[in-house]
Amino acid sequence: MPKAVILLSGGLDSATCLAMARSQGYDCYALSFDYGQRHTCELQAAKDIAKTIGVEKHIIVNIDLRLWGGSALTDDIEVPDVNKNFNEIPVTYVPARNLIFLSFAIGWSEVLEARDIFIGVNSVDYSCYPDCRPQFIDAFRNAARLGTKADDEGWEFNIHAPLQYLTKSEIIQTGIELGVDYSMTITCYNPDDNGLACGKCDSCYLRQKGFSDAKIPDPTRYQK
Amino acid sequence: MPKAVILLSGGLDSATCLAMARSQGYDCYALSFDYGQRHTCELQAAKDIAKTIGVEKHIIVNIDLRLWGGSALTDDIEVPDVNKNFNEIPVTYVPARNLIFLSFAIGWSEVLEARDIFIGVNSVDYSCYPDCRPQFIDAFRNAARLGTKADDEGWEFNIHAPLQYLTKSEIIQTGIELGVDYSMTITCYNPDDNGLACGKCDSCYLRQKGFSDAKIPDPTRYQK
Repeated sequence: MPKAVILLSGGLDSATCLAMARSQGYDCYALSFDYGQRHTCELQAAKDIAKTIGVEKHIIVNIDLRLWGGSALTDDIEVPDVNKNFNEIPVTYVPARNLIFLSFAIGWSEVLEARDIFIGVNSVDYSCYPDCRPQFIDAFRNAARLGTKADDEGWEFNIHAPLQYLTKSEIIQTGIELGVDYSMTITCYNPDDNGLACGKCDSCYLRQKGFSDAKIPDPTRYQK
Repeated sequence: MPKAVILLSGGLDSATCLAMARSQGYDCYALSFDYGQRHTCELQAAKDIAKTIGVEKHIIVNIDLRLWGGSALTDDIEVPDVNKNFNEIPVTYVPARNLIFLSFAIGWSEVLEARDIFIGVNSVDYSCYPDCRPQFIDAFRNAARLGTKADDEGWEFNIHAPLQYLTKSEIIQTGIELGVDYSMTITCYNPDDNGLACGKCDSCYLRQKGFSDAKIPDPTRYQK
């Protein structure tokens, strides 16, 4: 079975992405980050999801992005309620996050001799983050080839972004077909200490709309 | 004064690079990594260099690349003596190292609102690492633009690699003119506990040859 490294945040998208990689026959190596995010409870979700869906190994890397902050997720900036415009980069954007995450994934892949990396980015129902767009993923793929042994050896990394053009509703339907238990996933940017979702942020809004559009009951546990 | 983020390992090249950035009038923000490298004494060198040359701030980020190893610098693999061929990627190559380091530099730059990043890569007198080549730097620049606010805002990061096409001798001559004290720098891949260089690895060989070609006394402290 070919090996793949899967970026697993503990959210709805990355859980679906892991299930898709598994269903395609990959031996999965899950990679999560404790980066100083407001919503660290997503890491327990990531562990539970990795265990349930099944991975060869799950590594959580510690990187302190609070060193410079600059985001509502890693700094003393309030998470705003959804504005539903999604036409500008919001304060929840974490500078260079996917650039950093993908770079670590490339390092681990090179050591594993894996050529496939899965990332659950989406550019349909999303928060307008630049590092979720297909142009970025394609440019990163090229940089990764040139900055590793791949180019000398005549191959390249496949950066799979299977959710890229799906609506949130389609992502949920795909995951349900693959048996993903979405009650285990944490999407909210601002959950409470018990992991209960706020129901008000961009991420909660997109998730709620996804379940509603898919006509599937939303299993998320919300704050009262 | 414009701000620049400088990748500073504590070695000869990055110290020169920092001095060049300073001489060009940048307010310098130095970034080093404790990544589980064999030669952690380079981090003390980085601190001393940053203090001597002068920076606005110096951050050392902890990232444990021993999680997957795969390099003589981060794993239980012996550092080989120089073979002087330099025509294949050696075991001291650290998978995705510059990809990871540059990604962090982009994150910090975005928060600082800096558009300039300096990295001391060189593709003349070097260990054949793919992530030191101009093609990689150029591809990374493109990925960084597309994965951050830069593209939406209509600008891009300048990734300066001022040593790219210099010989080691030219790098040393440049640094000497700028007042760099090379006795503070640590280049060796396998120094002892006192920071004394082995004199036998690729990195020591290239450094010794550089000083010799430049007809400048080598201030490196070697093991007996």
